[in-house]
Amino acid sequence: MLDVKAKLAAMGRTLPEPVKPVAVYVPVIQSGDLLVVSGQLPMREGKLLATGAVPSAASIDEANEAAAQCAVNVIAAIGAHLAGDWSRVLQIVRVGVFVQSDDGFGGQPQVANGASELLGEVFGESGRHARSAVGVNALPLNASVEVELMVRIKEAD
Amino acid sequence: MLDVKAKLAAMGRTLPEPVKPVAVYVPVIQSGDLLVVSGQLPMREGKLLATGAVPSAASIDEANEAAAQCAVNVIAAIGAHLAGDWSRVLQIVRVGVFVQSDDGFGGQPQVANGASELLGEVFGESGRHARSAVGVNALPLNASVEVELMVRIKEAD
Amino acid sequence: MLDVKAKLAAMGRTLPEPVKPVAVYVPVIQSGDLLVVSGQLPMREGKLLATGAVPSAASIDEANEAAAQCAVNVIAAIGAHLAGDWSRVLQIVRVGVFVQSDDGFGGQPQVANGASELLGEVFGESGRHARSAVGVNALPLNASVEVELMVRIKEAD
Repeated sequence: MLDVKAKLAAMGRTLPEPVKPVAVYVPVIQSGDLLVVSGQLPMREGKLLATGAVPSAASIDEANEAAAQCAVNVIAAIGAHLAGDWSRVLQIVRVGVFVQSDDGFGGQPQVANGASELLGEVFGESGRHARSAVGVNALPLNASVEVELMVRIKEAD
Repeated sequence: MLDVKAKLAAMGRTLPEPVKPVAVYVPVIQSGDLLVVSGQLPMREGKLLATGAVPSAASIDEANEAAAQCAVNVIAAIGAHLAGDWSRVLQIVRVGVFVQSDDGFGGQPQVANGASELLGEVFGESGRHARSAVGVNALPLNASVEVELMVRIKEAD
Repeated sequence: MLDVKAKLAAMGRTLPEPVKPVAVYVPVIQSGDLLVVSGQLPMREGKLLATGAVPSAASIDEANEAAAQCAVNVIAAIGAHLAGDWSRVLQIVRVGVFVQSDDGFGGQPQVANGASELLGEVFGESGRHARSAVGVNALPLNASVEVELMVRIKEAD
């Protein structure tokens, strides 16, 4: 079994409790062998790691780390859906990264790499993915980054 | 059969004629058992319910209602594709909500709930979905909200 | 076999070398019979065709042509994945178009048509797709347009 908790610990990261399901939408939906994960914010212990636009209010480095935290939260959400068996992850298919950006800022890829690299470190070959990174002028709770995901899993035995 | 028209009527809403297909893209594409619905604007009787950025030009309440209208238009598009048999909807898989926002506005979830709650009321358990809500500085025709959807359906008998 | 190179040539366009895979993400991921193509920028011979916001820094016509170039680059990426056999493309399923926009600009559909029409010309019926076009205030490298794609293919014989 893929021990994601240990991998994250070795990277100095903690696997959080997954975000509680809310009434009107859910963190993860399964459709056939696809999981779609709702947009995740860079919450750590109940606080946003980075708020405001990049780079004026949050630096590229801060936003990169925030993107990594979004990815950690995505992993937690997937784990809750799969009862902790992340070895069922066949492929991270698509990663969408929204970066709250100053007008005309062009460094979204550097920010998004925080999420992409973490997924690669945790899932190896299965962590390779297609990606779209775009800038936006506003995100929920004024977060600097939001990450959404599509994952292919293998059916349970 | 799921009587979506009656459900909407009970909510005081009218099922519109679906938007006419245009030359270069279509309202709904089916790929296997997935339907992908093009981004829908909050059109009602040929007019946008809300235009401009939230909250300066359109209030959160107005935008929430506009998001609900987008969802109604999505439902109309799905119905046209399924020849009116919405009971073939197995699962609303993913809802993407773009909210035209003032810089740094963080209330996209409250706006997006207008779409999510309507889908839940109409489709019940099948209406639960993953969601990404983001802010943007511009949308087609200066609309305040745009909603896109991915849906899983069951094959026709 | 669908001769995409000839079709593009007849349109006065050149099929570029596909963008090289980078470390942390890849241009195309296959999941079952779905291909997901990473967001493509309007690169032509190593330069962006259009930068800055539409319409103040790049005109609608320039951005429309840039969107067409994004689509050409998407086609190149798909070709690299399919070893040049574009006849395996069953359906362009979804096209997402992000247009760097001045605040409140509402002409994203005219820009996005550059991509949609090119896909229709190249793939015919298989090129019909669902589409979402939105405005954003910033894109990677300050590009004026970014295009992402989901495609359904048939399995190799």
